[in-house]
Amino acid sequence: MASPILLTPGPLTTDLLTREAMLKDWGSWDFAFSELTSSVCQDITRIALGEGSHVCVPLQGSGSFAVEAALGTLVPRHGKVLVPQNGAYAQRIVKILKYLGRSAVVLDHKEEEPIDPERVATALQADPAITHVALVHCETGTGILNPLAQIASVVAAHGRGLIVDAMSSFGAIPIDLRDTPMDALIAASGKCLEGVPGMGFVLIDQAKLLAATDNSHSLVLDLRDQWLYMQRTGQWRFTPPTHVVAALRSAIDQFISEGGVAGRGARYRQNLTVLVKGLRSLGLQPFLTEAHQSPIIVTFHAPSSPAYQFADFYRTVRAKGFILYPGKLTVLETFRVGCIGAIGPQEMARAVQAITQSLQELGIEHSAFMKKND
Amino acid sequence: MASPILLTPGPLTTDLLTREAMLKDWGSWDFAFSELTSSVCQDITRIALGEGSHVCVPLQGSGSFAVEAALGTLVPRHGKVLVPQNGAYAQRIVKILKYLGRSAVVLDHKEEEPIDPERVATALQADPAITHVALVHCETGTGILNPLAQIASVVAAHGRGLIVDAMSSFGAIPIDLRDTPMDALIAASGKCLEGVPGMGFVLIDQAKLLAATDNSHSLVLDLRDQWLYMQRTGQWRFTPPTHVVAALRSAIDQFISEGGVAGRGARYRQNLTVLVKGLRSLGLQPFLTEAHQSPIIVTFHAPSSPAYQFADFYRTVRAKGFILYPGKLTVLETFRVGCIGAIGPQEMARAVQAITQSLQELGIEHSAFMKKND
Repeated sequence: MASPILLTPGPLTTDLLTREAMLKDWGSWDFAFSELTSSVCQDITRIALGEGSHVCVPLQGSGSFAVEAALGTLVPRHGKVLVPQNGAYAQRIVKILKYLGRSAVVLDHKEEEPIDPERVATALQADPAITHVALVHCETGTGILNPLAQIASVVAAHGRGLIVDAMSSFGAIPIDLRDTPMDALIAASGKCLEGVPGMGFVLIDQAKLLAATDNSHSLVLDLRDQWLYMQRTGQWRFTPPTHVVAALRSAIDQFISEGGVAGRGARYRQNLTVLVKGLRSLGLQPFLTEAHQSPIIVTFHAPSSPAYQFADFYRTVRAKGFILYPGKLTVLETFRVGCIGAIGPQEMARAVQAITQSLQELGIEHSAFMKKND
Repeated sequence: MASPILLTPGPLTTDLLTREAMLKDWGSWDFAFSELTSSVCQDITRIALGEGSHVCVPLQGSGSFAVEAALGTLVPRHGKVLVPQNGAYAQRIVKILKYLGRSAVVLDHKEEEPIDPERVATALQADPAITHVALVHCETGTGILNPLAQIASVVAAHGRGLIVDAMSSFGAIPIDLRDTPMDALIAASGKCLEGVPGMGFVLIDQAKLLAATDNSHSLVLDLRDQWLYMQRTGQWRFTPPTHVVAALRSAIDQFISEGGVAGRGARYRQNLTVLVKGLRSLGLQPFLTEAHQSPIIVTFHAPSSPAYQFADFYRTVRAKGFILYPGKLTVLETFRVGCIGAIGPQEMARAVQAITQSLQELGIEHSAFMKKND
């Protein structure tokens, strides 16, 4: 039953307690399960300080299901969405909007640059037809953190709606809905809350949700219908992933014990420090400058040695008990290492050791890639 | 950790082995997980004897997600779907088609009547614009089994496509894709394969899937895109419910050990026999005649005693370790009892005992409801 440690952006390594919570079967119509769902939703709302303004709507499926559901539910059919993009997940939002037949205006940034709030302001000023802005908080494609608070101010000042994909930041990076105005905040079970994958959730401004009639392109992704049904019955509209919800309940208990966002974020930052220091000492350079780097996932330039192949590197590190993640940049050869999951600096130090040994075994000389990257 | 036994149409009681398979974390990008997914899909295809003709496309979410995905992927935007309906799940298909903006023709049947193949033939003859028929195989709303083979012949003879929601029948009632022509067969992890809920799957005629370009209304529900990506990479497009997939692998191993569809179906029919005989002896009458009753779930008329309230009855039976299911008929007061899950005739006999004792405790006299129902 020994699992390798997942240094990936989710699914990630979970605590055994979280997985053991799945040893029980739950009836989806049963009041005990309704209470479980309700307690999970309440805690998620509390984590973002959204009580009184936002409601939590859980949804079956992966995080991308929740992103599509939020866009489909909240953006009117004649709406127009500004998508500031600096990576793969913002590009996925553009793709979703195309499927949904909603107009999109893409505001391209370089992948190593955070979204610029001033450029967002200019774009909104230039086009009054834009109804919403869709922003990725932490762009997992690179690991860059975008300035959510500033962008939220700009969007609010221009009277538009903001939809935030906080998939990989929620739970690790503070988001305060009391002073960061947004229509929707999207995340999922298998990220920084350290549950298992299988459900997403969207914190939605309650008034906006109630007003969002007849937008959704999909029955199963209609968050308004999901929420109204749940309010009326305490139940999910369609079969919920009961074991995943139970695991998330356990994971949130552990999250609270760790000190919430502050505690979790601190551990991930420690992981980041150990990781970056360790790989830098090997001559491996992060793609992003330190100021823009999130404590979620780090993109590293691949060693420039001709002996390097990601597949071999991956397999060698895996044999030592760690799962890496491929890069997602189109031009540069990179690989990614996640800092999140039920792991601490000790595991990360062991991961650095495994990477060091792997490079040696593969005959990738220290000096060979030091030269090119330094 | 003791769970009550779920006499529900899913989520259902699973074997401990199935739940224990979730004690391991899997990297979604890892080749071991790709092999897991691939083996699950191969076995699912084999169960319906669809090798060579149909491909298995797994999808995150509940069964209804897979139903909407199949309709959205296979029915062209200008398509027209005949929906023979005799219950809640066929009505859900009509609702989905409305969201999708696809034309629907509803062929109403009484809830206690199986779909009539001749009426389907007449409807197809009358309207050449109908491109597809969407059929629920076992209508879980009542537990009625519809004559799939005859309807499939009729649809094929008229040159239309058939999309089958086999959610609650797949794995327990034989379906042979070699001689039962259909474009798509839809089911889910947490039904008669006895996995946990969290993913659906669709067996799709490969040629039809490849030809189904530009139909899908949704990125996340686009089964063609999902399949093409999986063929190319071995991976799911978006984060898969890794633990649910691992549980399904274990559940399918147990399914094969039990003798596949024949073995599983036989056990469920034993459960049905014990259940119906036991409750009949209390004077509780099944809603359907025996000939139309599936071995999946049984709808019973509620006791006619004024002392009967479903909520009290439910709670009393639950305290004895069994979870019942509410009825889904609009006019008649009923309740439902599932025959599926990792339970056998012994558990069902104990369930009958629990129901018997509960009715006594609630002061619902034997004779009181015998009179009215007999």
